[in-house]
Amino acid sequence: MAAANGPSPGRLASVYSEVQTSRLHHALQLPSVLTSQFSLVDGPPSSATGNPDEIAKLFPNLFGQPSAALVPAKEAAAVEGKPLKIGVVLSGGQAPGGHNVICGIFDFLQHRAKGSTMYGFKGGPAGVMKCKYVELNTDFVYPYRNQGGFDMICSGRDKIETPEQFKQAEDTANKLELDGLVVIGGDDSNTNACLIAEYFRSKNLKTRVIGCPKTIDGDLKCKEVPTSFGFDTACKIYSEMIGNVMTDARSSGKYYHFVRLMGRAASHITLECALQTHPNIALIGEEVAEKKQTLKNVTDYMTDIVCKRAELGYNYGVILIPEGLIDFIPEVQKLIAELNEILAHDTVDEAGVWKNKLESESKKLFEFLPPSIQEQLLLERDPHGNVQVAKIETEKMLIAMVETELEKRKAEGKYKGTFIGQSHFFGYEGRCGLPTNFDASYCYALGYGAGALLQSGKTGLISSVGNLAAPVAEWTVGGTALTSLMDVERRHGKFKPVIKKAMVELDGAPFKKFASVRDEWGLKNRYISPGPIQFIGSGADAVNHTLLLDLGVHA
Amino acid sequence: MAAANGPSPGRLASVYSEVQTSRLHHALQLPSVLTSQFSLVDGPPSSATGNPDEIAKLFPNLFGQPSAALVPAKEAAAVEGKPLKIGVVLSGGQAPGGHNVICGIFDFLQHRAKGSTMYGFKGGPAGVMKCKYVELNTDFVYPYRNQGGFDMICSGRDKIETPEQFKQAEDTANKLELDGLVVIGGDDSNTNACLIAEYFRSKNLKTRVIGCPKTIDGDLKCKEVPTSFGFDTACKIYSEMIGNVMTDARSSGKYYHFVRLMGRAASHITLECALQTHPNIALIGEEVAEKKQTLKNVTDYMTDIVCKRAELGYNYGVILIPEGLIDFIPEVQKLIAELNEILAHDTVDEAGVWKNKLESESKKLFEFLPPSIQEQLLLERDPHGNVQVAKIETEKMLIAMVETELEKRKAEGKYKGTFIGQSHFFGYEGRCGLPTNFDASYCYALGYGAGALLQSGKTGLISSVGNLAAPVAEWTVGGTALTSLMDVERRHGKFKPVIKKAMVELDGAPFKKFASVRDEWGLKNRYISPGPIQFIGSGADAVNHTLLLDLGVHA
Repeated sequence: MAAANGPSPGRLASVYSEVQTSRLHHALQLPSVLTSQFSLVDGPPSSATGNPDEIAKLFPNLFGQPSAALVPAKEAAAVEGKPLKIGVVLSGGQAPGGHNVICGIFDFLQHRAKGSTMYGFKGGPAGVMKCKYVELNTDFVYPYRNQGGFDMICSGRDKIETPEQFKQAEDTANKLELDGLVVIGGDDSNTNACLIAEYFRSKNLKTRVIGCPKTIDGDLKCKEVPTSFGFDTACKIYSEMIGNVMTDARSSGKYYHFVRLMGRAASHITLECALQTHPNIALIGEEVAEKKQTLKNVTDYMTDIVCKRAELGYNYGVILIPEGLIDFIPEVQKLIAELNEILAHDTVDEAGVWKNKLESESKKLFEFLPPSIQEQLLLERDPHGNVQVAKIETEKMLIAMVETELEKRKAEGKYKGTFIGQSHFFGYEGRCGLPTNFDASYCYALGYGAGALLQSGKTGLISSVGNLAAPVAEWTVGGTALTSLMDVERRHGKFKPVIKKAMVELDGAPFKKFASVRDEWGLKNRYISPGPIQFIGSGADAVNHTLLLDLGVHA
Repeated sequence: MAAANGPSPGRLASVYSEVQTSRLHHALQLPSVLTSQFSLVDGPPSSATGNPDEIAKLFPNLFGQPSAALVPAKEAAAVEGKPLKIGVVLSGGQAPGGHNVICGIFDFLQHRAKGSTMYGFKGGPAGVMKCKYVELNTDFVYPYRNQGGFDMICSGRDKIETPEQFKQAEDTANKLELDGLVVIGGDDSNTNACLIAEYFRSKNLKTRVIGCPKTIDGDLKCKEVPTSFGFDTACKIYSEMIGNVMTDARSSGKYYHFVRLMGRAASHITLECALQTHPNIALIGEEVAEKKQTLKNVTDYMTDIVCKRAELGYNYGVILIPEGLIDFIPEVQKLIAELNEILAHDTVDEAGVWKNKLESESKKLFEFLPPSIQEQLLLERDPHGNVQVAKIETEKMLIAMVETELEKRKAEGKYKGTFIGQSHFFGYEGRCGLPTNFDASYCYALGYGAGALLQSGKTGLISSVGNLAAPVAEWTVGGTALTSLMDVERRHGKFKPVIKKAMVELDGAPFKKFASVRDEWGLKNRYISPGPIQFIGSGADAVNHTLLLDLGVHA
């Protein structure tokens, strides 16, 4: 069944490390509501995050449906559900814990709907469309418990969008007689899940669709969905590395480490890692955008701190940079838009005559950039000729710019220190780590809860596990109407439903906490080294700062 | 006492993470010979690793002295030593465990020579020469127990070389009335320690000198010194990251991760990480040199595996590359030597006329290199105008070269896969991590043992802890004559003593193990994810593969 290029035939033959093996045997606790008989209680009718009229038009069958909460059932009698046929699909980039969501659904069916069948669609939504799947059984699923990665069924970035694609999904649902489909993904994938739920309902299919909130970026969250899974683990992996680099900086006393962290859109990862490690500087894209800062402003901000530190005798430091930083700077966005336009039509001449096509501000900015970054802007282009912003090595760009500014100040007698930049990018290392105890339990509950929602006949909900600052036993479980998370965006003259990315809020508790201490972190060395993630012992169950602060718990 | 630019004033005011705190409380076990009364037994007279006659001339006072072993004392009576004045200095790059060596010496003095004084020289050997130190006491030392980094007293790369510098060291020893000095460092620093020991002896100073084997690179080892500290931790940190990247590669199925690993001279780190994680390819510099491979050979080797994997449906993989790889390739060494020569005198003209000064083979090689690497070769130069090999991004170079070769094969119809390279460099992340249980105990024993050697009046020995595959209680403790590890090299017409770096031996057990399985790893996916270092639980005390294989224990 394994196709060329497709998912691996499973981990049955894999050799495991000691830690992987110990994680296999790690017992997963469920919220207590899931450990005995429960029933579903509907809330009030829901609306949408924005433009409810448009959302109502886009989701005529689903709009307004209530969210649901699991509560202990009043009758003590055990109700055994009838067997179900459930499919699951992973969508988008990897996040630690994905396998546990699948294990949660699987175990729910084993415990509560004996005789059920579970299908894992292979390689993401394309697997749904092409009806490529593997039937999941105990032997197949077992080796993935509490393990990192998405390789059990692999993921993909396709979307089910066109009428033909919806029809393909319908054919698959019919062919496999699916009672339900669980879509594990980010904001886009959950929007897509809701569109599929609406479509299946409109076609009177019995197939229900439930989403699960996945993304290390942490930008899929709301009141009912306090965090997306994977964020906790990824931030702790990055923070381990940042803490090590900090100790190195303090020990050798001669390097400025510029650490770029994954997270294209929002800066949650950078903010969380800052709260965990106390760097000298952490740039938050949302703040840069809000304050309409230029690249020069950002450079000056960093250079000022470097200069002040030099006066204190510290010619070293650690600076965190969100991957998406330059996307937040209006002048850079403008430059990139102009470059995309120019380079789509013209070639770049050696003499640089092409630069005259840039508007004067953009030309000035382009010439302000270090040569290596100019080159990346011109060379790193996708098949459509667009600049690939993710490939721009922002950390190297900022090193070069701070260096240039420091040379200027040195010439003016304003700076007498030494500066050596070291660049780092932490990204792939964090997407597939072994999930923390938190992510392992959270994902297992999300999956188990998704099973419960499907068994109850719910559709168009996102699995929602709450009260996360409490012990696992006290976590709440339910489902939130996906339409209630939506707004619309106008694209190509049409309204498209979107779950807006949850960006870092400058008046939110995590950023305010950071803002209140960053000046001290800038000049004094308050570094914390979180060390490697521990699975046993004190602190092994600790939750990340962002979540605790979002929940109003002092972190 | 903290100087500008100097070491931090200590960690007394630091905020610690949960894991850091739990490590503070981690009880360190000592080899049982150190827990009761012991005496020193000398071995037979020693010689040198090479050119004993020259070594005898260079070390007239020390040459031939025996190594010493600690054995349980026959008399049960507790012998309390007289108070000592001991200095300690960290030399060279950071390695996890350095603080524990200092704790070991400190605790030895507390337990066995009450009333002693201990000085930490600040910022490396320069601190010895300038008599910059901090007096170590319980409060100051405590927060560093089992912690990463060298920031307790910081390190430096100076050497004590000239007659003036030896005199400065002598002045410091006299001023502080030092009974002993412990030099914690790599091959160069231990050579230097021996020269200082010889000098002090020749001056009839009471100050003894003992070395300790430090380097994450793992290239300071011999029969009596089975490993250098820090290697175990650094390799485990890198392997955690590599394992994560492997899971990512297998999950997304579309990236080739090229991971460059720290380790300038020897490829021990790459080999150990390969043994821990089972990558598809691991390049071992010593093998490349031994087989006199060209860059083209190396590229073809990698490309062949990429092509074979594509036929099996795997368009992804993980490739490990030692930092020092290009240093091992004769043709590259030749090119760099020529570039250093040419660029010391001439400038580089845009038209490339300067290239005609390269010999034809070097010119061909230079033009074979990707433009970004050509640029690095021309731009990344140290103050003497020499190419900074460590700054060459070998992983990006190899991606570009494999890419080019694949395009050629694709045009010839020999390759139908897809290839996207992702580059990584893991270096600083590993130097300052929290030491593993192994490194924590090993370092503590090295330090405690160094104290014992000094108390017994030994000098010119390197602290040696053996039987490392056994439980800590059974470890052996002693000192090995530094002169016995030495050979000479001719530099500027003079013989210089050196402890030769222990390179990867192609007929050694670690490489042979790797060579026996690498073909299988190349085509099949045998990835292992070691996960984050655990300090508690099964496997927390495990020792690295290289050490176990070197010791003849099956790993």
